[in-house]
Amino acid sequence: MDAKELHKILKGKIRTISNVDNLNEESLSLLYTPGVADVAEECSKDPENTFLYTRRWNTVGIVSDGSAVLGLGNIGPYGALPVMEGKALLFNLFGQLDAFPICLNTQDPEEIVSIVKNLEPSFGGINLEDISAPRCFRILEELNKTMNIPVFHDDQQGTAVVVTAGLLNALKLTGKEAKNIKVVINGIGAAGYNIAKFLIDFGVINLILVDKNGVLNKNVPESCLHEYHKELAQITNPENIIGNLTDALFGADVFIGVSKGNILNEEMVKKMNKNPIIFALANPLPEIDPILAKSFGASIVATGRSDYPNQINNLIAFPGIMKGAIEKKSKITKKMLHSAILAISNSCIPTPTRILPEAYDKRLHLNVYEAVKNASESN
Amino acid sequence: MDAKELHKILKGKIRTISNVDNLNEESLSLLYTPGVADVAEECSKDPENTFLYTRRWNTVGIVSDGSAVLGLGNIGPYGALPVMEGKALLFNLFGQLDAFPICLNTQDPEEIVSIVKNLEPSFGGINLEDISAPRCFRILEELNKTMNIPVFHDDQQGTAVVVTAGLLNALKLTGKEAKNIKVVINGIGAAGYNIAKFLIDFGVINLILVDKNGVLNKNVPESCLHEYHKELAQITNPENIIGNLTDALFGADVFIGVSKGNILNEEMVKKMNKNPIIFALANPLPEIDPILAKSFGASIVATGRSDYPNQINNLIAFPGIMKGAIEKKSKITKKMLHSAILAISNSCIPTPTRILPEAYDKRLHLNVYEAVKNASESN
Repeated sequence: MDAKELHKILKGKIRTISNVDNLNEESLSLLYTPGVADVAEECSKDPENTFLYTRRWNTVGIVSDGSAVLGLGNIGPYGALPVMEGKALLFNLFGQLDAFPICLNTQDPEEIVSIVKNLEPSFGGINLEDISAPRCFRILEELNKTMNIPVFHDDQQGTAVVVTAGLLNALKLTGKEAKNIKVVINGIGAAGYNIAKFLIDFGVINLILVDKNGVLNKNVPESCLHEYHKELAQITNPENIIGNLTDALFGADVFIGVSKGNILNEEMVKKMNKNPIIFALANPLPEIDPILAKSFGASIVATGRSDYPNQINNLIAFPGIMKGAIEKKSKITKKMLHSAILAISNSCIPTPTRILPEAYDKRLHLNVYEAVKNASESN
Repeated sequence: MDAKELHKILKGKIRTISNVDNLNEESLSLLYTPGVADVAEECSKDPENTFLYTRRWNTVGIVSDGSAVLGLGNIGPYGALPVMEGKALLFNLFGQLDAFPICLNTQDPEEIVSIVKNLEPSFGGINLEDISAPRCFRILEELNKTMNIPVFHDDQQGTAVVVTAGLLNALKLTGKEAKNIKVVINGIGAAGYNIAKFLIDFGVINLILVDKNGVLNKNVPESCLHEYHKELAQITNPENIIGNLTDALFGADVFIGVSKGNILNEEMVKKMNKNPIIFALANPLPEIDPILAKSFGASIVATGRSDYPNQINNLIAFPGIMKGAIEKKSKITKKMLHSAILAISNSCIPTPTRILPEAYDKRLHLNVYEAVKNASESN
């Protein structure tokens, strides 16, 4: 069966059901009028009571404007809907969360911020999804500042958590230390920005970022960069090298690709340090075929695909992170995400063909959840 | 058990579950990446495909700003949340619909309209709930004009459908005809406005509307009335009587109260025509105690309460109306609501203590659904 057929048969990957086994006139008079009036008054007096009396404690809004969906680009909110419904299914299966897709018919960042803020009473947490960079940075920042519930952007934070956890394990396997390696990231969008920040947090000093304009360096006039790239220009590229991806890769220990596929060739891999680590995460077409990368000398290769070893899969992280944050009603902090990274990297004994834990392992999600919960602000 | 305890135990009256029985890596690769990409592209090319491939075909957003919740008034969106969750449960149980509460942290009508329009990709229908008049009139009108999915305001249209159906059956029982009766409605808010319109549609000529300013008449300066009251002033009160509720009731055959409780006394009932019909629908305190009303000569008495005979309960109407409209992807038209009124009044053989069908009767909801579907624009 193909995906379209399966979707047509299901007519929805998730559905709503009642939590009450024996509904009758009496129980309905407690759950709806007139009984619910008492509960409504309690929730009006103190909004915190909604977490006690409704499903809000466990309810996540999956918000997208469809501007950067999967590898498909800006396909809009209707195109995003089946994807967000799939995401809701995953939140449900792996985080036991009650998630609802909110696909917005606007791509104006200010309007998105305003709508999501106004939706706060219905949700315990917000997962932003498939919103293009750099718009997503400002949206996440604004929402985090003004909302009283956790706001998470999986394409930024989730991807960066899993990549960092994977890299920590790859380094363990190759006996290298973060402070001594040179890392090149190709792509400075939602994922690249956050990966860079985490790698610095975890001790990487020599970090080079590359995008279609070449290596990010301190000579680029500030007026040519948006504020998030300005920030990165200051904290990366310590030797201030200038050039293109090939120049950047000279002597690099690690390549992380989070932009477009099929851009890494033999010559480029061979310019890297001995036994390099290659994360070719562009989807569906990786930056380099993993088998070729190995044949050119790569020691560990990861991709975003499930049909090769070492899939870098956000599913490893997002259910546990949201579950932990929503339970503590805590904003998502750097400390919580660092704990998630360590929980993930410590949830398996890595091998070169399995640097990360199995995404379908329920103990993994429990570990992430516990780690995030324990690292939350409320503790 | 009281309502608060029951709510605390349930921690949510509804929840989301998966529609897939055997989830494994293979089915997930069809329901999420990479398989879902094909479906996403189809939905992006033609938004209609979302009805085919996602649960949108059956999904209702229950939108409230908490400005007029039950009898509690403006208790805000957090107070509204448990009520809207209860409404979602009822949509689920009696309309087999997938409903999600959207409680908005704004009471600005323009902002509400703009948000709900932007939420369109996620829903197949919108049920407005507990939004105060006259704001609700403009909001419903605007959304109906600009959205491509049915928008229904239960407090306006649902209540008016059930009241009209109940009155039709009460008239049958008393052998009176719409064109010959005098009807007084106390309260010209969300319900009163729509009841007035329907009663006129169903042949009532002598209709008097009363609110805290007294009888609505053609002498009131237009500048004192909002546009919906202006409209009503023109089409009601044919003899242009002036005065208060007591004046209006002189010789009336029917009283319909949709405002505040405990305002009808013996003298007022006795000023009405012989064997009057009294719908004392204020909640929780009716305009007059039904037993007293009977003792003062009323032939048929209805209230909004379940502990007296003849409950006027919106539950009779809204699940079937939304189910019929959403299935036909049709805006909600007057014709559809008229069909719902007739389906309801014809779904029982009325007696003076049961003028309306049983709200828990599944055949009733099927009748309403069929009637609305058949009357929809798409037919």
